[in-house]
Amino acid sequence: MSDFSLSDLERIVASRAKASPEESWTAKLVASGQAKAAKKLGEEAVETVIAAVSQGRPELVGESADLLYHLMVVLNIAGIPLEDVLEELQRRTAQSGLQEKANRPS
Amino acid sequence: MSDFSLSDLERIVASRAKASPEESWTAKLVASGQAKAAKKLGEEAVETVIAAVSQGRPELVGESADLLYHLMVVLNIAGIPLEDVLEELQRRTAQSGLQEKANRPS
Amino acid sequence: MSDFSLSDLERIVASRAKASPEESWTAKLVASGQAKAAKKLGEEAVETVIAAVSQGRPELVGESADLLYHLMVVLNIAGIPLEDVLEELQRRTAQSGLQEKANRPS
Amino acid sequence: MSDFSLSDLERIVASRAKASPEESWTAKLVASGQAKAAKKLGEEAVETVIAAVSQGRPELVGESADLLYHLMVVLNIAGIPLEDVLEELQRRTAQSGLQEKANRPS
Repeated sequence: MSDFSLSDLERIVASRAKASPEESWTAKLVASGQAKAAKKLGEEAVETVIAAVSQGRPELVGESADLLYHLMVVLNIAGIPLEDVLEELQRRTAQSGLQEKANRPS
Repeated sequence: MSDFSLSDLERIVASRAKASPEESWTAKLVASGQAKAAKKLGEEAVETVIAAVSQGRPELVGESADLLYHLMVVLNIAGIPLEDVLEELQRRTAQSGLQEKANRPS
Repeated sequence: MSDFSLSDLERIVASRAKASPEESWTAKLVASGQAKAAKKLGEEAVETVIAAVSQGRPELVGESADLLYHLMVVLNIAGIPLEDVLEELQRRTAQSGLQEKANRPS
Repeated sequence: MSDFSLSDLERIVASRAKASPEESWTAKLVASGQAKAAKKLGEEAVETVIAAVSQGRPELVGESADLLYHLMVVLNIAGIPLEDVLEELQRRTAQSGLQEKANRPS
């Protein structure tokens, strides 16, 4: 059983972001700026949606991995620690079901 | 420091998915099927993109949380354990930088 | 045979945009601003993608209509005449096939 | 003033779709199938959203043109005439404002 976590991915992205853009795809993407990175995030989301509704498990696994990777890149560029997002999720899920949804701003 | 992880979120989603759709937003979304859940994932991705390029940190934190939540719902409906996605990420990041990208199918 | 065109839709959107937000959905959307309108455009695009890959003709017709409507709203808010977009399309299609693509900035 | 219309674009796409994939980008995209074409549509929508909320007029004009082109490709692959979409828009806009929205299935 793997013990690789999203926090591990965050650390790898942060480490590679400091490398030379010539040597690292991640560094190249970070250097290209948030508009480009967010665009890639959106593209991977579209591919994840297509995989979910019309393709098989391997495609959905692969696209989900791509989506998580690009989310880590976007958060890295914005200087937002993954922990802030996980704490927000913890806070929200401490509430339950429809009640949580009702409390969200629409 | 929070120790909440994406795996914790996966477990919460799985637990709520078994609740009554009347009592749980998650159960309602799971019951609505993959097309609806994937649509919500796509919508949250669009909101994450907008937050990344034109809004502030709190918006990007909130939208990223929504995106991760809806990805867990899509994976739950597809019967794909998060671990499969994390193992794929581990496998990919064991390779480095541009080399990894070059090996991906375009 | 219908002679309704995208320019007709543009005019209807422009006309309704000036109505009271209480009376017109279009006016309400325009008043909500570009971030909200662009979000709606993105959502309709996701639904169009889902319809294209996994649903039937009526769904794809309906979602394409929604997509065009929200594109007209986004252009209206930005103050961009549809004609500017059509001229850009005319300019691009005056070139041919792969050549045109090769000339585009990536 | 240009008299280029979306129907002109539809005809150009239909004509190029019959060309050799080696000679025409459009033919290549049509030959690649709906999943690939819909993915491109989704990507262009993401770029249109980014342009709308954070870039300038030329970018939004260009991305809107790309979005319309890829929508014509998706409709071509699905065998749906643009006229069906325009008739749907005419039917919907014959109703007014919030009333129309209220009548839509959610």
